[in-house]
This record gives sequence, structure tokens and C-alpha cells, in this order.
Amino acid sequence: MQSRFFTIQNHPQGLPDQNLFNLETAALPELGDGEVRVRNTWLSVDPYMRGRMDGVTTYIEPFTLGSPLEGAAVGEVIASRDSRFAEGDRVRHMGGWRDVAQLVADQVEALPAIDVPEQAYLGVLGMPGMTAWTGLNTIAGMQAGDNVLVSAASGAVGSLVVQLAKAKGVKGGKVVGIAGSQAKLDWLESLGVTAVSYRNKDAQQLSKDLKVACPDGFDVYYENVGGDCLEAALNNLRVGARIAVCGMIARYNDDCPVAGPGNLAMILIRRARMQGFIVFDHWDQYPSFLNEVGPLVARGEIDYRETVEDGLEKTPEAFLKLFEGANQGKMLVRL
Amino acid sequence: MQSRFFTIQNHPQGLPDQNLFNLETAALPELGDGEVRVRNTWLSVDPYMRGRMDGVTTYIEPFTLGSPLEGAAVGEVIASRDSRFAEGDRVRHMGGWRDVAQLVADQVEALPAIDVPEQAYLGVLGMPGMTAWTGLNTIAGMQAGDNVLVSAASGAVGSLVVQLAKAKGVKGGKVVGIAGSQAKLDWLESLGVTAVSYRNKDAQQLSKDLKVACPDGFDVYYENVGGDCLEAALNNLRVGARIAVCGMIARYNDDCPVAGPGNLAMILIRRARMQGFIVFDHWDQYPSFLNEVGPLVARGEIDYRETVEDGLEKTPEAFLKLFEGANQGKMLVRL
Repeated sequence: MQSRFFTIQNHPQGLPDQNLFNLETAALPELGDGEVRVRNTWLSVDPYMRGRMDGVTTYIEPFTLGSPLEGAAVGEVIASRDSRFAEGDRVRHMGGWRDVAQLVADQVEALPAIDVPEQAYLGVLGMPGMTAWTGLNTIAGMQAGDNVLVSAASGAVGSLVVQLAKAKGVKGGKVVGIAGSQAKLDWLESLGVTAVSYRNKDAQQLSKDLKVACPDGFDVYYENVGGDCLEAALNNLRVGARIAVCGMIARYNDDCPVAGPGNLAMILIRRARMQGFIVFDHWDQYPSFLNEVGPLVARGEIDYRETVEDGLEKTPEAFLKLFEGANQGKMLVRL
Repeated sequence: MQSRFFTIQNHPQGLPDQNLFNLETAALPELGDGEVRVRNTWLSVDPYMRGRMDGVTTYIEPFTLGSPLEGAAVGEVIASRDSRFAEGDRVRHMGGWRDVAQLVADQVEALPAIDVPEQAYLGVLGMPGMTAWTGLNTIAGMQAGDNVLVSAASGAVGSLVVQLAKAKGVKGGKVVGIAGSQAKLDWLESLGVTAVSYRNKDAQQLSKDLKVACPDGFDVYYENVGGDCLEAALNNLRVGARIAVCGMIARYNDDCPVAGPGNLAMILIRRARMQGFIVFDHWDQYPSFLNEVGPLVARGEIDYRETVEDGLEKTPEAFLKLFEGANQGKMLVRL
């Protein structure tokens, strides 16, 4: 059986273009003992994948040049030589960027029995959702009544952070989201989130606008962006604020180091805590997350959005759109 | 009775000079009920005082223009109208920058009964010592075996941090201190600390030298400086590192914001935690600190240094020398 998959042949500098990606075809080897073969139905593209293209180990191993790229995917088992899986099972695994994946069964998990569309396990109930929940609760220690600021607030992670924060902030805490386009801002406002645009603003102007949106300052800042958003947020911290650093997408494609915020001393002045985290370190908490957030999603109480590209060929394009801010909610490829 | 004291008449921009400070004389009012009068014997000058000269509330109220400046001091009670104090008592209080202080007794504390020179309560057993102990233990959560990096390692705070870290790091953890002059580096080496100079180096070179000093990277970074030291430290963090931000003296005299480190994303990559703290928030732990560190000092097991200027008139000069790196250990004025 043939598998079609994407590879890269070299490490990109700066923002890559579609020429980086090669669509290849190869025959799969015979299925071995303990292996399963999965026909993928949905592929995830995520900003962190950019880091894996650099050839440097950061918090995750780099992609191997010339080998199939990896990423989260869901699909249907079409052949199994492991007793835990049978043909027709719906599963999630890391063999994305391809149409058919052949994997050791230990690396495959059955989808939970919650009544949601299967692609939700790549987004709101997958890695992005778990990232939102972990950052807000475990890292930032959000408490009811906290004022919460979220950058990239309409993205796959941010859009769940703002809704979890709204749900938890029962004592009058305020939730403010930073986003770009008017459509994203309108959607945030429809969720009861105070939306602030970053468009055409320097850090100073964004600082002022955040101050207007929440004059008392923020107890929690959920950082997805870096750059001017971080600088503006630092100017609006309350004493004892906690910053969960989930990503700094503004920096992922930098060719060379770009200076950081000039007001880092606010960490000292506000006795703030800033902590980076990688969701994979906290995956043992996934059942707790699923218990809490799964029912909310099944009951339609979380408004999650998807931006969908169709066809394996569109995977690089979908990935690159992440850096243009073109997606609202989770960016997915449907096969 | 006359008191001689320093005031400032305006808020300085950048690094002030001695013209900022006015030495004034005024008659003290009659001693009221519940007040004590103290003849100061030692005055403390500390980097944080620069922030109080700016006229902006940061983590502490600004100095009032035209009123006596404040700071830690020790001295002898020469008159008391409070039952808790008698003439001859040795006390500590915040009525520094002057020769005779008249204070509400609630703001005065008797010196503990530990056999150390009284000026130790302004340094190794005072605010700087408590700052070192709090940052290392409460904020950075240092554990035995941790590799610890300290900037301004020969200063009043840093020199105690390195020694407390050495004492605690029984399982082979390494302690590295950053300092400037050869005399400071030699002194650090004599304490068993690996000393690294920052002189004539950019952040990149300092990064490399820290890597040589401790190839495995650091679990704890005790931040007194900011600027290039922070950038170099960020490049040398281990996964799960903790940064205690005690001060950023490199920034205290900046006229305008200076860009921060370009590698702040290391917080994410190393899943590090960076936390600012103000020792006054943790003062309820002072008895625990004194219990632990007091006996070490009394037995001569902590090598603490003092740089002493003589005479009230020298107080501004002593203060300004802090920003030249001219002090080794605690900077004091003896009256």
C-alpha cells in the first residue's frame, strides 16, 4: 500500500514558503507485529512545528530531513496487528502530514467516547485545548475574580483560554483578548470578552488601550505571541501577576534575535511570575482536562471555531497561514 | 536638638550626581509620647533607593521632595518616651540619611542578641542578607545539587547568595558568580565559587564563558543586574530553571527604556520560571532567616565584606558609588 507524505530537505531561514515542502509517495512496508495502519481523516498544523524545522533541539526533537514530517492526526484503523485495535477504530496519533500512517500501537490512542466531531480531538479537546487549560490553571494558577489577558485570543489555544477564564471568573474578574481583524474582535465580544486590536499599534499605544480596557490591570497574562503584546502586557500587570508563556509566535520566523521588551523590570516592580511551559510535560493531567472540558464541548457550551483546508496537498499552505493570522480557531486539514 | 539630614529637591533623570543632594539642618520638635530619638551610628545606602528618587510609585513609595531621605540605619537610643525602649538601646530603623532620627517607636526595632558587629544588621543580617536568603530559597526554590548562577556576586546581596548556595549545594551542584574587577573575582574564587568576569564582553561572549564555567547549565539564576547578564544567563538555563529577580541595577539609571534581551523565548524553551520579588513582602520570615544565618555569621562561617565611607557628608558619594560597582560587599556610612 502507498503512503503520500510531506518532507523537508533543508532547514528554513525565516518564514518558509511552500517550496520547502516536498510531497512524496512511498510503499509502506508489510505491517509488523504490534503495528497498526491508519487512514488519516484530519491533520493538525500547529505553530510549534516551525521550531521542529530548525534542526536544533529546543523543547522537542527537530524533524529529520527527508523523513515524513510529524504532527497530530486522527483517522480510522484499516489494518491492525495489535490486540488493542481493530479495523474501523477511530484513533489519534502523531503520524500526520500524510494520508496513511503505519505506527507502533503504543503510539496510537483510541478516541474517547464523548459525543463530539472527531476533529475536536485535534483542537478543543486535543493539544491546543489541553494547552489552554494547563496554562490557565496549572501554570498561571487562575483564581475566580482574576483579571485575565490573552494574546492571540481568537486562535486555537487563545479562544479556549478566554472561554475557560470566563467560566471560572465568576467573581467579577474581567477577561480581555487581543486579536487582529474586526471579525475576530466581534467574535470575542460575542463571547463576553473585551476585545482589543493590536493592528497598527506600537507597544505604547497597545499599553494604553489595555489600560482603558482594564484599568485595574491583570492578574493573569496568557502569552501566545511575544513582541509588542508582551511589552504592553508587562505595563499592565497587577502586583503578584502570573504570566503563562505558551508561545511567542511573533518570534518563530525571526532570522536573527530581535530585542526583547524594554520594560522587563516590571517583573520586579509587580513581583510577577513568568513561566514557560510545554504541554507535553503535563500530559498526565489529560484525563482531568477531558473530564472538565469534554462535557462542556459536548453540550455546546464552548464556542470553538475551525479553519479547514481540504486535501493533503493543502497541508503546507494551511501551516503557513498560521503565521499570517489567517486562521480563526483551530487550523485543520481534512482528507 | 539639631538633626542634619539629606533631601532632594527634584527628581533626577538618569544617573544623578552629588548636586542632587542637599545637606540640611533643622531643630527636632519636642519628643512626643510613643516616640524615640536615635543617634545613628551606621547608615545603609542601597541600589533600590534610586527608584524612590523617581517620583513614581513602583514597589515602594517615592521619596518626598524636600523631606529627609529614608533608609535603613542603626544607632543608639538617646531619649525615649516609649516603654519598650530605654536610653542606650541599640536599634535598627528606616530613619537613615541623617545623624539624629526621631521616630514613632513602632517603627524601631531592638537589635537581636547575636554577637556580631551592629552594622551587620544593615548587611549580612539585614535587608541585603534577608534578600539573598529569600530569593534563593523562597523564590528560586534552590535544592541541593542545583547549579546556581549569581550576578553582582560580590555585592551585598550576591556575596551572601553564593555562600548560602555553597552551603546548601552539598550534592555536587556548582556555584558560579559574575563580577567585574580582578579583586572581586579572586575573592569569589577564594570562597570556592567559579568566578566569571563580565568586563569588556557582550552578551554573546558572556554566554560562552558561562557555558565553559558550567557546561550543564543552571537550575537557578539569581538576578541582580539585568541587561547582558540576563541575556547570557537565559542562554544557559537548564530545563525547569528558576530565576529570582531581585534587582536590575543596570537599568536603574536609564533615561529611557532600553531594549530587553532578544532571547526571552528561552523562558519557553527551557520551561523556566522568572519571578520578581521584594523582600519587604516576605519580612514575616525574618526570624527564620535570623535563626539560620545568624549563627553562621556569629561563628565566622560567612565571609562578608563591607565598604565603608566615614561621615554623614559622604552619604551621597557612597550611594553613587553603588552604580560604579565600586563597593565590595555592603556599602555603609559610619557616623
